[in-house]
Amino acid sequence: MTTDAVPQSDRVAASSAPLHPLIAQRWSPRALDPTATLGDDELRALFEAARWAPSWGNSQPARFLVGRRGDATFEALFGTLSRGNRGWAGAAAALVLGVAVARDDEGEPVPYAEYGVALATQNLALQAVAEGLVAHQMSGFDKDAARRAVDLPARLEPVIMVAVGRLAAPGTAAPDLAERDARPRRRHPLGELVFAGEWGRPAF
Amino acid sequence: MTTDAVPQSDRVAASSAPLHPLIAQRWSPRALDPTATLGDDELRALFEAARWAPSWGNSQPARFLVGRRGDATFEALFGTLSRGNRGWAGAAAALVLGVAVARDDEGEPVPYAEYGVALATQNLALQAVAEGLVAHQMSGFDKDAARRAVDLPARLEPVIMVAVGRLAAPGTAAPDLAERDARPRRRHPLGELVFAGEWGRPAF
Repeated sequence: MTTDAVPQSDRVAASSAPLHPLIAQRWSPRALDPTATLGDDELRALFEAARWAPSWGNSQPARFLVGRRGDATFEALFGTLSRGNRGWAGAAAALVLGVAVARDDEGEPVPYAEYGVALATQNLALQAVAEGLVAHQMSGFDKDAARRAVDLPARLEPVIMVAVGRLAAPGTAAPDLAERDARPRRRHPLGELVFAGEWGRPAF
Repeated sequence: MTTDAVPQSDRVAASSAPLHPLIAQRWSPRALDPTATLGDDELRALFEAARWAPSWGNSQPARFLVGRRGDATFEALFGTLSRGNRGWAGAAAALVLGVAVARDDEGEPVPYAEYGVALATQNLALQAVAEGLVAHQMSGFDKDAARRAVDLPARLEPVIMVAVGRLAAPGTAAPDLAERDARPRRRHPLGELVFAGEWGRPAF
């Protein structure tokens, strides 16, 4: 395991083995700084990270539409969010719609298209940590509305929305968001997730 | 962007913005060291990384079965690989089957289950870079055979196989694998992947 200059956080994953800080420090906060903006270089780095993710046969099925807070794309994407997500994601510096090229030019399904969007989006979320940003993936949005809002070609499928921004300064967040973000991060024990020898036998 | 102690490689991603080394240096080689083994701590770190990935409503749909080269699980998983993958993945130190909890206890589909396996597996692949290992995700395996080989419960779905190991020392790989691994890494231009303002208008 290596260490680097990623800022420390009290939200670091409670793992039984040392994790790379980029992975240990990624989380999905809701209390974002409503004044924060993103530099062009930061935004470019996020999408370069997504670009260099692996994919099925290098099919590269992930596409993205990005809006910055205050522009028309941001407003259009924000309007598709669930009520719960509208309660906090308006403070994001950017909203990103992640889309899968679900069918090829002949209309045939592209294998692992949604899987590939996930690989790319996780790269984006981890690069966000490296930039001092946070990226919170959301499934809570109206996919049909998103399709209409961005006039998406039929062979593409909306998959995920990502709020990218900066963490709110301590004490500045709305109490309900601060409470939500302060809850312990929980995962199943490793022994319930990873098996060896036979299915169900804990590897660790 | 931050830097760290991840070893340099000539396979680093050719990005138009500086990427975190963990992301820039991840790739999917085929020429693995057939004598390499994995320490318990290394293996544990890979799966802790997977464990701490995000998921839909923290549903944590990813499960894994791991075999080490020479054990019965490895042999069983290896036997499900496509001919192409059998040509190189036998030199992996471990084979990992990634599985989705596709249906809940009531038999209802779990949303974003396969997507969640991808998020977890990408975390695993990036932690591998931090450990000085390589992780190559493969779709080329017989999922029905994998299900039978590991007696997988019906509500789980095999999704991905991952070869984990160490890169072969220079000059030691079979020529066909070395040639394949030496090919340039290619991605679509960023302007074809990321849009702003309207669908199809390059963001960069």
